[in-house]
Amino acid sequence: MTRPSGRQNDELRPVTIQRHFTRHAEGSVLISCGETKVLCNASVEERVPPWLRGKGQGWVTAEYGMLPRATGTRNMREATRGKQGGRTLEIQRLIGRSLRAVIDLEALGERTVTLDCDVLQADGGTRTASITGAYVALVDAMDGLFDAGKVKKSPIHGRVAAVSVGMLGPDPVLDLDYREDSGADTDLNVVMNDGGGFIEIQGTAEGHAFRRDELDGMLELAEKGISELIAAQDAALDGA
Amino acid sequence: MTRPSGRQNDELRPVTIQRHFTRHAEGSVLISCGETKVLCNASVEERVPPWLRGKGQGWVTAEYGMLPRATGTRNMREATRGKQGGRTLEIQRLIGRSLRAVIDLEALGERTVTLDCDVLQADGGTRTASITGAYVALVDAMDGLFDAGKVKKSPIHGRVAAVSVGMLGPDPVLDLDYREDSGADTDLNVVMNDGGGFIEIQGTAEGHAFRRDELDGMLELAEKGISELIAAQDAALDGA
Amino acid sequence: MTRPSGRQNDELRPVTIQRHFTRHAEGSVLISCGETKVLCNASVEERVPPWLRGKGQGWVTAEYGMLPRATGTRNMREATRGKQGGRTLEIQRLIGRSLRAVIDLEALGERTVTLDCDVLQADGGTRTASITGAYVALVDAMDGLFDAGKVKKSPIHGRVAAVSVGMLGPDPVLDLDYREDSGADTDLNVVMNDGGGFIEIQGTAEGHAFRRDELDGMLELAEKGISELIAAQDAALDGA
Amino acid sequence: MTRPSGRQNDELRPVTIQRHFTRHAEGSVLISCGETKVLCNASVEERVPPWLRGKGQGWVTAEYGMLPRATGTRNMREATRGKQGGRTLEIQRLIGRSLRAVIDLEALGERTVTLDCDVLQADGGTRTASITGAYVALVDAMDGLFDAGKVKKSPIHGRVAAVSVGMLGPDPVLDLDYREDSGADTDLNVVMNDGGGFIEIQGTAEGHAFRRDELDGMLELAEKGISELIAAQDAALDGA
Amino acid sequence: MTRPSGRQNDELRPVTIQRHFTRHAEGSVLISCGETKVLCNASVEERVPPWLRGKGQGWVTAEYGMLPRATGTRNMREATRGKQGGRTLEIQRLIGRSLRAVIDLEALGERTVTLDCDVLQADGGTRTASITGAYVALVDAMDGLFDAGKVKKSPIHGRVAAVSVGMLGPDPVLDLDYREDSGADTDLNVVMNDGGGFIEIQGTAEGHAFRRDELDGMLELAEKGISELIAAQDAALDGA
Amino acid sequence: MTRPSGRQNDELRPVTIQRHFTRHAEGSVLISCGETKVLCNASVEERVPPWLRGKGQGWVTAEYGMLPRATGTRNMREATRGKQGGRTLEIQRLIGRSLRAVIDLEALGERTVTLDCDVLQADGGTRTASITGAYVALVDAMDGLFDAGKVKKSPIHGRVAAVSVGMLGPDPVLDLDYREDSGADTDLNVVMNDGGGFIEIQGTAEGHAFRRDELDGMLELAEKGISELIAAQDAALDGA
Repeated sequence: MTRPSGRQNDELRPVTIQRHFTRHAEGSVLISCGETKVLCNASVEERVPPWLRGKGQGWVTAEYGMLPRATGTRNMREATRGKQGGRTLEIQRLIGRSLRAVIDLEALGERTVTLDCDVLQADGGTRTASITGAYVALVDAMDGLFDAGKVKKSPIHGRVAAVSVGMLGPDPVLDLDYREDSGADTDLNVVMNDGGGFIEIQGTAEGHAFRRDELDGMLELAEKGISELIAAQDAALDGA
Repeated sequence: MTRPSGRQNDELRPVTIQRHFTRHAEGSVLISCGETKVLCNASVEERVPPWLRGKGQGWVTAEYGMLPRATGTRNMREATRGKQGGRTLEIQRLIGRSLRAVIDLEALGERTVTLDCDVLQADGGTRTASITGAYVALVDAMDGLFDAGKVKKSPIHGRVAAVSVGMLGPDPVLDLDYREDSGADTDLNVVMNDGGGFIEIQGTAEGHAFRRDELDGMLELAEKGISELIAAQDAALDGA
Repeated sequence: MTRPSGRQNDELRPVTIQRHFTRHAEGSVLISCGETKVLCNASVEERVPPWLRGKGQGWVTAEYGMLPRATGTRNMREATRGKQGGRTLEIQRLIGRSLRAVIDLEALGERTVTLDCDVLQADGGTRTASITGAYVALVDAMDGLFDAGKVKKSPIHGRVAAVSVGMLGPDPVLDLDYREDSGADTDLNVVMNDGGGFIEIQGTAEGHAFRRDELDGMLELAEKGISELIAAQDAALDGA
Repeated sequence: MTRPSGRQNDELRPVTIQRHFTRHAEGSVLISCGETKVLCNASVEERVPPWLRGKGQGWVTAEYGMLPRATGTRNMREATRGKQGGRTLEIQRLIGRSLRAVIDLEALGERTVTLDCDVLQADGGTRTASITGAYVALVDAMDGLFDAGKVKKSPIHGRVAAVSVGMLGPDPVLDLDYREDSGADTDLNVVMNDGGGFIEIQGTAEGHAFRRDELDGMLELAEKGISELIAAQDAALDGA
Repeated sequence: MTRPSGRQNDELRPVTIQRHFTRHAEGSVLISCGETKVLCNASVEERVPPWLRGKGQGWVTAEYGMLPRATGTRNMREATRGKQGGRTLEIQRLIGRSLRAVIDLEALGERTVTLDCDVLQADGGTRTASITGAYVALVDAMDGLFDAGKVKKSPIHGRVAAVSVGMLGPDPVLDLDYREDSGADTDLNVVMNDGGGFIEIQGTAEGHAFRRDELDGMLELAEKGISELIAAQDAALDGA
Repeated sequence: MTRPSGRQNDELRPVTIQRHFTRHAEGSVLISCGETKVLCNASVEERVPPWLRGKGQGWVTAEYGMLPRATGTRNMREATRGKQGGRTLEIQRLIGRSLRAVIDLEALGERTVTLDCDVLQADGGTRTASITGAYVALVDAMDGLFDAGKVKKSPIHGRVAAVSVGMLGPDPVLDLDYREDSGADTDLNVVMNDGGGFIEIQGTAEGHAFRRDELDGMLELAEKGISELIAAQDAALDGA
């Protein structure tokens, strides 16, 4: 069976990671996973949320947004509607947890890093692209702290990337685009570190419930995809 | 290693499922999983959301709430704060998806079933208790529709229950209470049907990332726990 | 003329007051007045609102909520709607004022007691049941403070209970249930202390305006009912 | 004992009722009760709220507001804060119920009358002044409907006015200004019609609980005051 | 061509400025420009917004509101809708900027002056009337500070007034009322000081784009009108 | 006197206009004016706002947003804060009015065009860049309607562009960047069409009030700048 995108079942979309995309943020990355494009800005502020004051540690949090016309039909702007929807809150909580899993908050010191992930164009997989891109922005921001002598070494102690996998008919496939996602029976988002450990898995049966062997097949693809994404992050970070 | 609760690693908390707990709802269940107590009310309304009008199908949705003092310290009431938090939205979306996985929305007809899951007392696992209890309330509500001649047969085509599992040190354990959850390295919520299929899995590493064999161990416990919970649902439904 | 409920005009519905209903709150009472069931939780916090800081006194406040399906048809959840309605605000202000009338805020010290009154099932008289039940929860919470040596004596200096009365055709009747309330010409809520003093009266003509002698008749019934409710509170508090 | 205002215990403040205060509203009244000044505008719209559509009747509702500097210290504007407070909602519900008690909603036809009561200057008794003034604005609006041939006769079938009474030490007193209200033990708002019937009573003990004989004393003063207010309404309506 | 109002093209509507309109505000002015009537209250508070604390200067800000029935058809109350509309925010920002242009914020000291401009009746030009009236209220409030010995001299260092001009067909006209404004091709609001300097100009083409010579013609009328308005302010301030 | 940017007083920043920047919108333009970068997406929907239904005309509206880290320090996301600020509302109203000035809403038919202007990077002049860019996106969207045979000819009947000018000390200067804007005494935004007519002018004195001759000097620069911007729009539209 051929995927709608024509890709192999274990084939990622082309990934590009463009650093220094905007000039004000301490880390600024435009990640493209195929036609999905997310701008990930890391902002460092010299203060912590009220509940962390005086505890000698920092905080990493994320916010996620989609431009109204990132999608095929226009969505109402959340600022106009007066609140963020459940999907948005769910995604930004996921991004925040994923990045906190690879940073030492005490080594960060009493600072807050906010990762703003704004989707300029959507074609499936925006939450996983956000995590993969935000990691690079976070590294740049932490390197900046180190270069400025504000921390003794980068507080980052691991790497993190994310990808979606799914069941397309009988086949597990890697990195679904929007059209594939709409036709898939299961959608599984996987966040892993560079040691092959799972940071987060979120799977939803959208048609029939998925069996244990299907889960196993999807997880194998995810592991493969994530190791490629981590290589892409490395390559991007090796440049200036 | 002994669990803080003294239970075996594969031992559920005592479960009680009390039907007809309140009198107005079409289905009304008080489920207790140990000291976690959730009131699950199913309401049937003869209308559908605007985006489903005229499509010949119904809708099942859920809302989740926690009484301000369901927990050890008082939480601000969401109605006072003026909005539902991200955690609430995330949970009620999960409950809704889980229940929709076992119902035929066309057989339901142009009706909306709302499952209100309100936590009267919390001790960990409120979202999974909500799903397990809401299923029973949904069955009662659908049986009522059938008894009233409004549907030809119950639109429910499967069973669903949910449980949390986690890693407590090196050991996978089943059905964590609040104290255990606070100390666990991983928290994994699993929703399954009675055919052993997965409807939803959501796992978060809270300490170290979890390995594939740890995931396997947790999933085995979840399968065991869910088959016991489904048996408890059956027993409750066998009564009047 | 016979009441729809079959009760005598001066007859209360059966009252039960169950203490220690949930485990976390400092006082937790489930009060049932016939089919009206309200969970009243008292929470003690070691802080006061900003406008009382440093004034050497405490505060007692109340919040009121109704589960969406406490009633015959489902009501939209206030947390979903994004605000509390006028009726809710009016009721919780009434409960707060009523309880503050029997407590010495200076003897309480710089603490806040919040009385959360959540209606699990409604059949008329939810605001008066809330007051009657909240009083018992407040006593339990204050006794807890005393037992812990935080106050020298209970700051409570009186008792308070509340009941509704109304005109059903030409007759004043006590403690209206929902069906009776819908058919009544006048609805009068009365809050009294154990010395026979009025703490609050709120009467509304729903059909014809009520005359002075009708008011007198209703007030007499209220006095009788409240003395019985205070006896029920006493009996509940005499248990463990 | 002399009242702070120097008035007799049964003496109203001077009342002036200025009709046609603004030019756009169907009824527009500036009522002054001493230094309390409320602008009461009646607006007639040829539509009803959704829940009354097609039922052959109209609706009367009220909104209440206070200009930020109507009071001795500035209050935050409710439009800025993003919601109406509990006190505002409580008052506007009271005004609406009071006016609906004297109008035949079927005779009104499928129209909505909104009574906007905006306090330009406050010195106690703003809710009762609002009711007394809104009645006159409502009469003017209904007379306008009649003059335009839209109704066969004025749908108003009674008169309504309101006043506050209270206990100042041992004495019941009529029509408390702000300074008196702050020192009073009880605050009782009374709404009556011209037949001496009660439409609404709302009494709150602010110091000691009030006894039955004190209530009787206050109600007698209220009856006297309301008959004088109704006379003032009549006098105003007799002018052009 | 004759203006709908019958006025000359360079003729202001009659202006009246009534000081001390309400009793609580430090400055209270009712300004009438024809049938447009705005109550402008200046409130002085001994504190500054958080971002100015400890900087040794004060702040002047404005809020604008329209009573629901200030206009020909009733507008929904912004407090009910839960937010201020874009037009309101735009106007109150304009009023604030205009008044800050004539006051020395350091001489004011760590105080906030809030200018509440509430439109009681609208007939075009409410924002410009608000500025013209608010200036007089601000002077009264500052004179009060001086009389109380709180400032050494009035911190006001200039005068400010505002007027609208527009193109009615080929003709520039001064001070448009609502009917004229609806028919005008251009609407230009001009705020000037007593030295003939511009503080703010806001012009919008509503029909055809306006040419440079049309702009010149409108600005000349504005200068004339504003000098007359400043004379009216002076005359009002010369009284007690 | 030299400008901080080193540009001539009448020199625009380099302008680039990149069409088809994202793939879903009917028109999608990334405009850069120096370091200010705004993504302008035009969305066409086959419906009109409720108040225009059945009137045989369309509507053009705009929304404006700034990514949280478009600026030197991070701004709170408006979707998180729960409302759009006054500045945002003011700007999006301006953009909408400016574009409606060059389109024939009847020729558009019963459609809505929404122009989403999202600032990716800010360095002064974001509102004027939004207008200039949105015009090009609107043309692309209208050409698409024409190509699809939905309109007989493009409903656009003119061109529109915008620029800011200001007084930097004694000199009028064109197209201020952020640093220049902070130091300017006057900030004037000018929107013009290709016939040299003014669509909107908004000028604010930030230091001293500006004189008539200063206004004249600024307007001349604006005319020059806008003719260059219109040329840049033309050049961009001449490409594919």
